Amino acid sequence: MHAIGVDIGGTKIAAGVVDDDGQILAQTRRETEPDDAASIDRAIADVYAELSADHKISAIGLAAAGFVAADRSGVLFAPNIAWRDYPLRDNVAALIDDKVTIVVENDANAAGWAEFRFGAAQDVDDMLTLTVGTGLGGAIVTNGELLRGAWGVASEIGHMRVVPGGHYCGCGHEGCWEQYTSGSALVRDAQAAAITAPERAARILELAGGSAEKIAGPHVTKAAVEGDPLAVELLAELGRWLGEGAASATALLDPALIVVGGGVAAAGDLLLVPARKAFSEQLSGRGHRPEATFVVAAMGNDAGMVGAADLARL
Amino acid sequence: MHAIGVDIGGTKIAAGVVDDDGQILAQTRRETEPDDAASIDRAIADVYAELSADHKISAIGLAAAGFVAADRSGVLFAPNIAWRDYPLRDNVAALIDDKVTIVVENDANAAGWAEFRFGAAQDVDDMLTLTVGTGLGGAIVTNGELLRGAWGVASEIGHMRVVPGGHYCGCGHEGCWEQYTSGSALVRDAQAAAITAPERAARILELAGGSAEKIAGPHVTKAAVEGDPLAVELLAELGRWLGEGAASATALLDPALIVVGGGVAAAGDLLLVPARKAFSEQLSGRGHRPEATFVVAAMGNDAGMVGAADLARL
Amino acid sequence: MHAIGVDIGGTKIAAGVVDDDGQILAQTRRETEPDDAASIDRAIADVYAELSADHKISAIGLAAAGFVAADRSGVLFAPNIAWRDYPLRDNVAALIDDKVTIVVENDANAAGWAEFRFGAAQDVDDMLTLTVGTGLGGAIVTNGELLRGAWGVASEIGHMRVVPGGHYCGCGHEGCWEQYTSGSALVRDAQAAAITAPERAARILELAGGSAEKIAGPHVTKAAVEGDPLAVELLAELGRWLGEGAASATALLDPALIVVGGGVAAAGDLLLVPARKAFSEQLSGRGHRPEATFVVAAMGNDAGMVGAADLARL
Amino acid sequence: MHAIGVDIGGTKIAAGVVDDDGQILAQTRRETEPDDAASIDRAIADVYAELSADHKISAIGLAAAGFVAADRSGVLFAPNIAWRDYPLRDNVAALIDDKVTIVVENDANAAGWAEFRFGAAQDVDDMLTLTVGTGLGGAIVTNGELLRGAWGVASEIGHMRVVPGGHYCGCGHEGCWEQYTSGSALVRDAQAAAITAPERAARILELAGGSAEKIAGPHVTKAAVEGDPLAVELLAELGRWLGEGAASATALLDPALIVVGGGVAAAGDLLLVPARKAFSEQLSGRGHRPEATFVVAAMGNDAGMVGAADLARL
Repeated sequence: MHAIGVDIGGTKIAAGVVDDDGQILAQTRRETEPDDAASIDRAIADVYAELSADHKISAIGLAAAGFVAADRSGVLFAPNIAWRDYPLRDNVAALIDDKVTIVVENDANAAGWAEFRFGAAQDVDDMLTLTVGTGLGGAIVTNGELLRGAWGVASEIGHMRVVPGGHYCGCGHEGCWEQYTSGSALVRDAQAAAITAPERAARILELAGGSAEKIAGPHVTKAAVEGDPLAVELLAELGRWLGEGAASATALLDPALIVVGGGVAAAGDLLLVPARKAFSEQLSGRGHRPEATFVVAAMGNDAGMVGAADLARL
Repeated sequence: MHAIGVDIGGTKIAAGVVDDDGQILAQTRRETEPDDAASIDRAIADVYAELSADHKISAIGLAAAGFVAADRSGVLFAPNIAWRDYPLRDNVAALIDDKVTIVVENDANAAGWAEFRFGAAQDVDDMLTLTVGTGLGGAIVTNGELLRGAWGVASEIGHMRVVPGGHYCGCGHEGCWEQYTSGSALVRDAQAAAITAPERAARILELAGGSAEKIAGPHVTKAAVEGDPLAVELLAELGRWLGEGAASATALLDPALIVVGGGVAAAGDLLLVPARKAFSEQLSGRGHRPEATFVVAAMGNDAGMVGAADLARL
Repeated sequence: MHAIGVDIGGTKIAAGVVDDDGQILAQTRRETEPDDAASIDRAIADVYAELSADHKISAIGLAAAGFVAADRSGVLFAPNIAWRDYPLRDNVAALIDDKVTIVVENDANAAGWAEFRFGAAQDVDDMLTLTVGTGLGGAIVTNGELLRGAWGVASEIGHMRVVPGGHYCGCGHEGCWEQYTSGSALVRDAQAAAITAPERAARILELAGGSAEKIAGPHVTKAAVEGDPLAVELLAELGRWLGEGAASATALLDPALIVVGGGVAAAGDLLLVPARKAFSEQLSGRGHRPEATFVVAAMGNDAGMVGAADLARL
Repeated sequence: MHAIGVDIGGTKIAAGVVDDDGQILAQTRRETEPDDAASIDRAIADVYAELSADHKISAIGLAAAGFVAADRSGVLFAPNIAWRDYPLRDNVAALIDDKVTIVVENDANAAGWAEFRFGAAQDVDDMLTLTVGTGLGGAIVTNGELLRGAWGVASEIGHMRVVPGGHYCGCGHEGCWEQYTSGSALVRDAQAAAITAPERAARILELAGGSAEKIAGPHVTKAAVEGDPLAVELLAELGRWLGEGAASATALLDPALIVVGGGVAAAGDLLLVPARKAFSEQLSGRGHRPEATFVVAAMGNDAGMVGAADLARL
């Protein structure tokens, strides 16, 4: 059965028709206004109209960045879109004449589910996805099921505290994991190095056009791929925190596989080799238990769309 | 259907016939030798013989402190009993003539399951049990199922790291949660206070017979119940770590209920009030999500036995 | 003998004629351009001309925010003024015809010295001044002498690390004490509370005109003086870090007195009571040693001017 | 002028006649009883009688492990000897007929002073000695004078807190620097590695006779000198904490030289190279200031004796 998956970003939505094997048969996009929630409702109805013209659609999955209600009907809170206890499902349904199942899913959960069903984690029943982008998102599959929690807001893994009194986080707390393992952390660490060791930061600064304020994650990754020692160190430090945090999460979850996605995952082994080392060194009970494997995500940018479509079908 | 639950301790086993409602119909015990694994096998067969004489038994659940194999057939590793990759199920089965299902479960998981099925967490589908005893054990139920992980060693929650470079743990790592939230932590904190503030520690020391080395958890709890300011502070500090760690676990798991058991839970509100406060203050997304409730465990010392019996029936 | 003290700020200088008892006999000011170091040289010569017209002056002390050379001839580096290895003494001397001693001193050292000579610390030989302003500055007097260090850059006490992996600091490192004990820290903590507990932050937000971005230290202090619970807590937390850091500094320095100055010191006991408690609780060897006393600075905003003048005379 | 220096240990005292150049002209020893303070008084009088028979002595310096009174007359508190507010100077004087100056000094201060006057730090005016033995001791010289503090208990540098909530310390606090940089820390880290990575710890365990409980600092150092990867890592980690803590101390003290002594200093560059790297990386204001040099102590085990004698002469 075909379903539509919609990945809802701050300023645009991407939608696709997804078949039972996770293949995308058709795609389209719309620009939206993050401050105008109704514009997003209309854009979703619009892409449905376009895509359903040529495909028979049984369900629509909406991947949303935010706290999603446990009954998958809407969004409790979103950091970047004007959603507060927003009944997204019903609002969209009211704009669509067809009888079609509509569900809302957290975007990181949707992306993780795509890895589980069609990507890097197809062969396991218990996995953890860590999406290292601007922040750090997560998805947990245990015994073949997506772990949603009592109120649908599980897997907010980036807000596990790893340092008491640590870096300030946008959530208002200190020491959240995503302040140590994310593209934002990478950028701030590089900017700090530009102050404490400007000579070592020369290549990163050059790639950023000479300005510490303009350093972005890809500058660091590019420098590291070239072999720049500081950039390699910065990614290794990020990887260390990735592995150490994953060891804590593993104490709770015991996954077989840890899938690392997001923009920073493009650094590949520069990130994963230090992550695996730190994970092993910090894993409780090591030597008396099998150890999870770290792999890079396989689904790319379409993961949220594909996962949301698949979850809508279930 | 009746099942036997066996709680296997270091020096004794306690066994009981448990009915479908979690009631214990009969009980018995045996002393055992932790260094002689075969003596435990025999003792289990022996209690089965005794209890099955008067009750029809369909299954035996064995609650073991250690890493339990994912197929529930044995123990990978135990800290206090001479089990290393030990085929406990088959060894016991070989000593029993009847055809009866035998399963091995982690003891904290068994106890948590008892709370979920018959105790404090009967009304929820997603819960976290935290057993604050000598160490800190845990059990996770998500969507009505026990979370066992890929290899059966999930919920080793006491080894989530809460302080990088923190207290040494017997597991060989630093900063494990159980070094901040356990009876052992309470004792060490009281002993430290006896050095830095002996005048404030007078009552606790008195209860311990005058010797800092002899301070035990119940001395602190008793002094706190009497209103001793230092003891109240020490339990509040333990409660703070309990709540803060639970907030991190909640970022991953989103439970509806957090059940606090173990010997230290006897302190009741002296522990739980500070725990709830710290939990709320550290909970990510607070205000945009429902919050888990903290309650004291209801099943007492029989929780492991009852939970193991019930899990064996499933 | 009379000396002139000059307090050099980013956009203005304040100068005064100071007598042997630390009394200011005359004062004047000039506006300056932080990006134009020569404008500051000229302004200093200018205030000298004005003040020396009516007073016989033997020395000029220049209080500068930055790393001051060990021979007190200039500034190695300043964060807010365009000084890099800048020969401030000789540049000013070249603009003055009279033969007069000119020395450059770090501004926090100058202010601390004023407390030692004429203010809160007149009666001790060993003291530590902690200036809790935008950042955290310090001055150390040991055995009656200002501790300058091998290269003149001692007492950069705000950059003692108190939390590994802690808050980012403008210096490029993590976990510097001034990120936990300063007006900036107070503001950020209040802003974080406005996210995690907006209802509790209502009064502080009201004082800030309704906007978290506009919260300033005095809003928190005012709310605390009124009895607002959150504001009281925030100052207590700042005080706790103040006391705990001071206990670490005391392990090295063993001062008789700790003088707390700077804008945040206006909070008085709301800051100092928690600071004293934390200091006592963290002080190593407590009970076997006398303990330093915490007091509020007595010299006010003129401390830097008075101290610089006095140090120039020595 | 000749002075006698006495290094008072728990179970023995070592005494020597020291000339103006720090040379030891004669030596002797006595066994003592740590629980019998009077036996130490008598032993000191006894070594004085022996040594003064052949040498003209003007002063006696007593190096004591403990908090020494500011007037250098006795010991406020000692961890390993039965001294509590003990008038050591007067007690010894009462047993000696000659008129001779007697002063008591903290042993780490005495050893550091010897390095300053005759050893590794002869050429500087501002230095910090770090004695990495069982614990972590320190001595501070600033502007050519020993920093004693208001009450004589400065330089208890091992109790600067480096990790909030960190390792328990015998002083009753958590996270003291000496729990990260000392022989005891090295041993515990090696024992922890024997749990988490027994295969990597094989060589260290072999040197310790196969038992983790018997691991001592020299086993780790020896293995590291042989090139054992784990031992090298453990010393590097110790060196990292040494350098990072020294960077914090330098923010306060700005020494020209950091002299590393004590048993663990025998590891030489295995300790110092990582220490220097960490120091540079953590030094606030790096690039805008000269940096302290790290060197190994030069005076060996006689440092306390020589320093105490020299300080008695002043």
